[in-house]
Amino acid sequence: MSDQPAPVTAAIVVIGDEILSGRTRDTNSNHIALALGAIGVDLMEVRVVSDDQPAIVEAVNALRARNTYVFTTGGIGPTHDDKTADAIGAAFGVAVDHDPRAVAMLRERFPNPADLNEGRLRMARIPFGADLIANSVSKAPGFRLENVFVMAGVPSIMRAMLDVVIPELKTGVPVASATLRADAKEGDIAMALGEVQKAHPSVSIGSYPFTDGDRFNTNLVLRSRDERALANAKAAVEAMLSDMRSGAAAG
Amino acid sequence: MSDQPAPVTAAIVVIGDEILSGRTRDTNSNHIALALGAIGVDLMEVRVVSDDQPAIVEAVNALRARNTYVFTTGGIGPTHDDKTADAIGAAFGVAVDHDPRAVAMLRERFPNPADLNEGRLRMARIPFGADLIANSVSKAPGFRLENVFVMAGVPSIMRAMLDVVIPELKTGVPVASATLRADAKEGDIAMALGEVQKAHPSVSIGSYPFTDGDRFNTNLVLRSRDERALANAKAAVEAMLSDMRSGAAAG
Repeated sequence: MSDQPAPVTAAIVVIGDEILSGRTRDTNSNHIALALGAIGVDLMEVRVVSDDQPAIVEAVNALRARNTYVFTTGGIGPTHDDKTADAIGAAFGVAVDHDPRAVAMLRERFPNPADLNEGRLRMARIPFGADLIANSVSKAPGFRLENVFVMAGVPSIMRAMLDVVIPELKTGVPVASATLRADAKEGDIAMALGEVQKAHPSVSIGSYPFTDGDRFNTNLVLRSRDERALANAKAAVEAMLSDMRSGAAAG
Repeated sequence: MSDQPAPVTAAIVVIGDEILSGRTRDTNSNHIALALGAIGVDLMEVRVVSDDQPAIVEAVNALRARNTYVFTTGGIGPTHDDKTADAIGAAFGVAVDHDPRAVAMLRERFPNPADLNEGRLRMARIPFGADLIANSVSKAPGFRLENVFVMAGVPSIMRAMLDVVIPELKTGVPVASATLRADAKEGDIAMALGEVQKAHPSVSIGSYPFTDGDRFNTNLVLRSRDERALANAKAAVEAMLSDMRSGAAAG
């Protein structure tokens, strides 16, 4: 609708061989998805890529060009396999070096100079021109370069960084949703549901089969930024389901 | 190494607004990752895209051009929001229509013609030239077109389809792995670990911090297709950790 603000969109790049190997399950992108949804930011895509500079650069550059924001998780620790800071520098064509602000943050956590070794100082390597993202858990910061937010992969640290980032973001109108359990198999309601969808184009109606004991059932999820349109579509789906049950009972 | 066969690679495209909204967690890609790893296929990338034809086409075409295999999950049900078959047809530039083999499979499940309605028949719409993937759970098949395997999103059905698909795939040498708990913070071992990595380039050494009670600990995961190289690198990491502990005890 013309009086709606422009959509605010986002993508996530999950960086990690351990996710691709299947050894570790990514929980960060689900957490970010829910946090963005709550402020009306549309998550358009998630990519999981390996700890490999060309793969990271390609994903970040493709996604930052067409989304309001990109969030990366993983690869900013002290070890040799942490390649994200250099990859982001390469993606933007800027140098990466020890950042005095980041070094100061690490000094807070490691006041003894012997503890602030070369490995830990790697966590202060930040692309030129980036703003830092505070890390309340373990101090080593994330960073923001233009529309790209670079966060840790450890879930507790990622969440602490996201809490700092969320208030900085442009917001959209949150999508309201309603979930209806059809108590029917998807195939039995598909055509009638398609008609409801056609009659309510501003509401996205999703149909999700699930196993309910020993049979299939269906959740219908209606989503819209327009509360009134959502209520109308929900009433139409409820009427459709009620008609089908009467028909089934009569038949 | 020159006597190793060419790597067999794969990518996954997860199709679903419900994953991007955060309402549903994707468990399929982890399951596929583990199944591919067991037969030595390298998973290079996972993309989660929305139920949107251009998004699906772009992801599938980008990934099928550079991987041995692409697996898609989701969007092949009977309802209006199931867009994968048409998207795959568009990606390959082939028509999509009711496939008599798929119709026959659906008739097995729905012998009463009234049950095999127009919605269910949508599940028999298959791109021209595809082979079908049997579905032992609910009959409606997936399909394979060239190197792209199109599977259901419902986990029980996806797994049944994957069981059919896995024996058809080229296999590689499975990557062997060893996991060592460092009992140290990542930053304390980072530089020594980097030296071990340099000395053992055919082994990939990943360092994964985790919260262990109220402090951070580190898992080190060594991965290689060469069992002897893996054993050597593991011994080197163990010696490094032992040296660090003696040093710490002495210091």
